[in-house]
Amino acid sequence: MGKAILTAMEDGTGDLVPAAGVDLQAGEYPVPLFASAQAVDVPFDVAIDFSRPAATIAVMELCLREGKPLVTGTTGLGEEDMMRLKAASRIIPVFYSRNMSLGVNLQLALVQAATKVLGDAFDPEIVETHHNLKVDAPSGTALMLAEAIEHARSGESELVFGRHEKNKRRAKEEIGIHSLRGGNKAGEHAVYFLGDDEELIITHRAGSKRVFAQGALKAAAFLVRQKPGFYTMADVICI
Amino acid sequence: MGKAILTAMEDGTGDLVPAAGVDLQAGEYPVPLFASAQAVDVPFDVAIDFSRPAATIAVMELCLREGKPLVTGTTGLGEEDMMRLKAASRIIPVFYSRNMSLGVNLQLALVQAATKVLGDAFDPEIVETHHNLKVDAPSGTALMLAEAIEHARSGESELVFGRHEKNKRRAKEEIGIHSLRGGNKAGEHAVYFLGDDEELIITHRAGSKRVFAQGALKAAAFLVRQKPGFYTMADVICI
Amino acid sequence: MGKAILTAMEDGTGDLVPAAGVDLQAGEYPVPLFASAQAVDVPFDVAIDFSRPAATIAVMELCLREGKPLVTGTTGLGEEDMMRLKAASRIIPVFYSRNMSLGVNLQLALVQAATKVLGDAFDPEIVETHHNLKVDAPSGTALMLAEAIEHARSGESELVFGRHEKNKRRAKEEIGIHSLRGGNKAGEHAVYFLGDDEELIITHRAGSKRVFAQGALKAAAFLVRQKPGFYTMADVICI
Amino acid sequence: MGKAILTAMEDGTGDLVPAAGVDLQAGEYPVPLFASAQAVDVPFDVAIDFSRPAATIAVMELCLREGKPLVTGTTGLGEEDMMRLKAASRIIPVFYSRNMSLGVNLQLALVQAATKVLGDAFDPEIVETHHNLKVDAPSGTALMLAEAIEHARSGESELVFGRHEKNKRRAKEEIGIHSLRGGNKAGEHAVYFLGDDEELIITHRAGSKRVFAQGALKAAAFLVRQKPGFYTMADVICI
Repeated sequence: MGKAILTAMEDGTGDLVPAAGVDLQAGEYPVPLFASAQAVDVPFDVAIDFSRPAATIAVMELCLREGKPLVTGTTGLGEEDMMRLKAASRIIPVFYSRNMSLGVNLQLALVQAATKVLGDAFDPEIVETHHNLKVDAPSGTALMLAEAIEHARSGESELVFGRHEKNKRRAKEEIGIHSLRGGNKAGEHAVYFLGDDEELIITHRAGSKRVFAQGALKAAAFLVRQKPGFYTMADVICI
Repeated sequence: MGKAILTAMEDGTGDLVPAAGVDLQAGEYPVPLFASAQAVDVPFDVAIDFSRPAATIAVMELCLREGKPLVTGTTGLGEEDMMRLKAASRIIPVFYSRNMSLGVNLQLALVQAATKVLGDAFDPEIVETHHNLKVDAPSGTALMLAEAIEHARSGESELVFGRHEKNKRRAKEEIGIHSLRGGNKAGEHAVYFLGDDEELIITHRAGSKRVFAQGALKAAAFLVRQKPGFYTMADVICI
Repeated sequence: MGKAILTAMEDGTGDLVPAAGVDLQAGEYPVPLFASAQAVDVPFDVAIDFSRPAATIAVMELCLREGKPLVTGTTGLGEEDMMRLKAASRIIPVFYSRNMSLGVNLQLALVQAATKVLGDAFDPEIVETHHNLKVDAPSGTALMLAEAIEHARSGESELVFGRHEKNKRRAKEEIGIHSLRGGNKAGEHAVYFLGDDEELIITHRAGSKRVFAQGALKAAAFLVRQKPGFYTMADVICI
Repeated sequence: MGKAILTAMEDGTGDLVPAAGVDLQAGEYPVPLFASAQAVDVPFDVAIDFSRPAATIAVMELCLREGKPLVTGTTGLGEEDMMRLKAASRIIPVFYSRNMSLGVNLQLALVQAATKVLGDAFDPEIVETHHNLKVDAPSGTALMLAEAIEHARSGESELVFGRHEKNKRRAKEEIGIHSLRGGNKAGEHAVYFLGDDEELIITHRAGSKRVFAQGALKAAAFLVRQKPGFYTMADVICI
């Protein structure tokens, strides 16, 4: 991800320029490199972190020491890690997201808005497609989309992971989740709202790590203008 | 449309029940019928009108006389008609929309929201599909979608209706509009936001007049709770 | 279906004109009507039957008596009925299909051809969408599509009806079948062939009974030119 | 393409193993390397060539000298080059394709088959999507798809590149071609057959050079079993 972020900065509008790299893969980089967050001794405005939980806490401590905001997309953070990040967010702006893709997060917001408007008259069904090496189904993002629908609905919801049955009619509270697996497909999520003589479909396709890097830059550009607090992509994407 | 609205009421939740029919096609109806709006002498809470401009003004006068709100979806209203509706809206709630479909109007709102979030990093392209007897291209709704994108963008926009060229790169300000025609297809509009390694697509398909009837009922249920004023679907669908 | 077939004849190219109607719904028709097949006493070139098993056998006997071909799309025929149809096909041309839609049958043929060409390098997944009152999943057509893939493949196949799992990778022999339910959707079947950096999708959407009527006319026009024998849509659609 | 072909061989089933590389980009390769085709002095069974016209002729001469088949995907070959390839094909098997993707060529075959079956009852429309740096519209592949439809039809065809008009109904002979441009999208072609209450869509998406490498290997495996002659992807993909 370090490389992907540096590339995204180069391709970007120049609002953000790299100040330092920490614990990057071997290679040539246009910035001073440091083996760990503790060692960083150059000035910076915001830290972007995609690493492991222990390293994330070290970056957080660097940010606290320098009074600078932190963007982190590290997955696998435990409850205690999250508590430390939340404690830090009383002193510095902290941004956390398990999926930094601008598109996926926009899709979440649009799905929530659509659910509120359409109400009970439309039946939601989610279809996600990933490569044939992915061992979990459904995807984390499909579950986030289902949650977005659940929260936006007034009543109860029941998740249904595929259907194989006789004499069973779809219940109104169902949210169908369908996981296609095949090829080396990077990730597609489509949410269908099926109504009477009418349907609305919100689809997102992502191709690479690059989209996470772009989302992280968007989050960083947002975060440097914020007061201390705990932020997520829903704060960046307010529709 | 009169028949479609009565059917939609029967299928609906019972919030709205029919009070009278005006100038309906020959047939049997479960309501008292009147040849014109002037003749209506039964009480009602809200009027729904899909007719011709002259008849719309007559319904408007009935609503003013009774102090009741008016929902109208009549197309072809001239400037003077619109001025009379706006004058009436200082006394009663008036709702006007050329396309009452809840889905299409939601799509417009979602496309506008998506444009604001995605900014210049994604290229918008619109694809609309209609039956092979439709003589105009693009559809009115495709133009409304393009307008929604134009308004939500910061810079200029240029509409492009298909492409056939050599040595010409897509300009950033372009909005592509592509009109497919074939079969007896009822109407599909898809808006593509194409980015780097990522895309978002918002698609709507409608099958029949029924969706306009359902939208009109939704508008009517909204309008009976409003103060005098001029309303559109954007007021019903606020995301 | 009787009405749908008469309408399709009117809309069609005039190759087929109606000779008689049997056991039709109340209404006005431009043909002589008969209460049962036995009673028919006007000349005809081919019989089209969508009825119940007992009535189908009566139509078959009429065709045998007159030496004319029979097209039947009646569902629910038992083993004995099928044996009688096959016996009749030694004397007259008999056509039988559970799904007369030209499009669905073409899709079956294309999916079979694609499976043969793509071989093991692409993973097949089927997505079908139907209205929320349908009580069986998957649809009969989705199963026919899966069978088409199974027959065209060299190795074994395993049908998978949705996925919900941890730590389980897609097996090469899987054919995913995903049943979406919602609204009053008439029927959509999409077959995805997912490969490395490449995918092929064959989609069919049907809107009404009309497509079965059109398929039946196509079958009838084919059958009048055939020798006695038992025919299916695969004979009409040879790609 | 040299690198892509070597990678595809490694990922493949082992039917084909590399014998030599000619004029490859700097890098490490698991095969003996030669600066030009003339210099090759190791035995081989089939040559795969993606180069420039002059280099293609040199590879052809090598194949003639060794009596081995030639697969070439070089674009920009002039009339004289093609005549030399055709002359060579009387002595050795020669395979030529401007687009080696198995998927695209299968799509061409399926579209041709579908056109024959559906006849005049369905209206064809082509939608292609490519990145925003592509300067030509429509794509070469979209034109190949339109040609496939033209050849499979009985009557005349007229290509229509987008629509923007008043009071003009779609003519039966039209083939609509719609070119979407945006982001860094690798290439998608969809052919819609729009009928009455029914539609069939054949879609292909490609992500990278890799698909051309895989197609070239498939062509090579086919070619080593053939007699001298001139072959194209239509010979490999016979549905």
